[in-house]
Amino acid sequence: MPVVTVEMWEGRTVEQKRRLVKAITDAMVEHADARPDALHVIIHDVPRESWGLAGVLGPDRTDV
Amino acid sequence: MPVVTVEMWEGRTVEQKRRLVKAITDAMVEHADARPDALHVIIHDVPRESWGLAGVLGPDRTDV
Amino acid sequence: MPVVTVEMWEGRTVEQKRRLVKAITDAMVEHADARPDALHVIIHDVPRESWGLAGVLGPDRTDV
Amino acid sequence: MPVVTVEMWEGRTVEQKRRLVKAITDAMVEHADARPDALHVIIHDVPRESWGLAGVLGPDRTDV
Amino acid sequence: MPVVTVEMWEGRTVEQKRRLVKAITDAMVEHADARPDALHVIIHDVPRESWGLAGVLGPDRTDV
Amino acid sequence: MPVVTVEMWEGRTVEQKRRLVKAITDAMVEHADARPDALHVIIHDVPRESWGLAGVLGPDRTDV
Repeated sequence: MPVVTVEMWEGRTVEQKRRLVKAITDAMVEHADARPDALHVIIHDVPRESWGLAGVLGPDRTDV
Repeated sequence: MPVVTVEMWEGRTVEQKRRLVKAITDAMVEHADARPDALHVIIHDVPRESWGLAGVLGPDRTDV
Repeated sequence: MPVVTVEMWEGRTVEQKRRLVKAITDAMVEHADARPDALHVIIHDVPRESWGLAGVLGPDRTDV
Repeated sequence: MPVVTVEMWEGRTVEQKRRLVKAITDAMVEHADARPDALHVIIHDVPRESWGLAGVLGPDRTDV
Repeated sequence: MPVVTVEMWEGRTVEQKRRLVKAITDAMVEHADARPDALHVIIHDVPRESWGLAGVLGPDRTDV
Repeated sequence: MPVVTVEMWEGRTVEQKRRLVKAITDAMVEHADARPDALHVIIHDVPRESWGLAGVLGPDRTDV
């Protein structure tokens, strides 16, 4: 019954999201006693220019 | 003074959002002793392909 | 089917939360074409010392 | 690198959280091209009295 | 190591976001004992028509 | 007018939170054209046992 929110960079395909939603739901049921009905997984597809890590904005990062 | 965040599928009209914001704000004032000034209602319009329920991604659901 | 998150100061009674959850759910159904099943309202009861408004922490505010 | 937030009822053990964090992280790496370093999983342990489903507050639900 | 989420109206430039991410990260390190590595700042660029303040939807406000 | 949410480990003092709220608000005003009135900074004080990084739960980490 829980609600899971995923913040990640935009760019994943529908097929990737499909498998991700399934896998996270399975993890919740197996490890957290969650019932799958009414269990939401909401993905926020965030542009790189709106995400900073260690003080550096996405487009300026040199490690990705 | 609270902050309310609404995650829902994209597709609502501006008029629907207008009435929703008004109604949620009224509910907060009436039932939660909230002051309306500085009370935010923020709507996240989430694409169907970024939302899973019961392990099934939006576009794959057969009940909607 | 949406998910609504309410951030507010701790201190509301269970009866206030009961009525708030009902009123917000009704608002979602009436104004946003939401189905009530699988519609979550999650309340975060935030201590005053963990909330700032206009740069002033809760316990330091003189207007409340 | 993403950030995953889990809203669920309080009451899970540390061991359950340990396995859940591991499983969600693995799911992100396998299905969403995520790098595990800097990948956060944050759990909000929400009291039943602060969570409503389908307009009904946690303590009033008869199905759980 | 924390995660900071900023909800604001869309319309800021990349340069504004660059400086904002840097300044918030610095504030976390200086005032909250945070380590900068793995410290995320995530910006949600919200359309005005999806944000209400004091019960009034963004496009209807007369003070901005 | 924006809303900033900070997820961090519990344990900061009120004085640390006071200075953090002030510094983040200043950063928003200086770099993001934000008006300080109605600008919220909400801190979620998360227990270590409810936070995983790189698949490892807080109490199991050896780097902190």
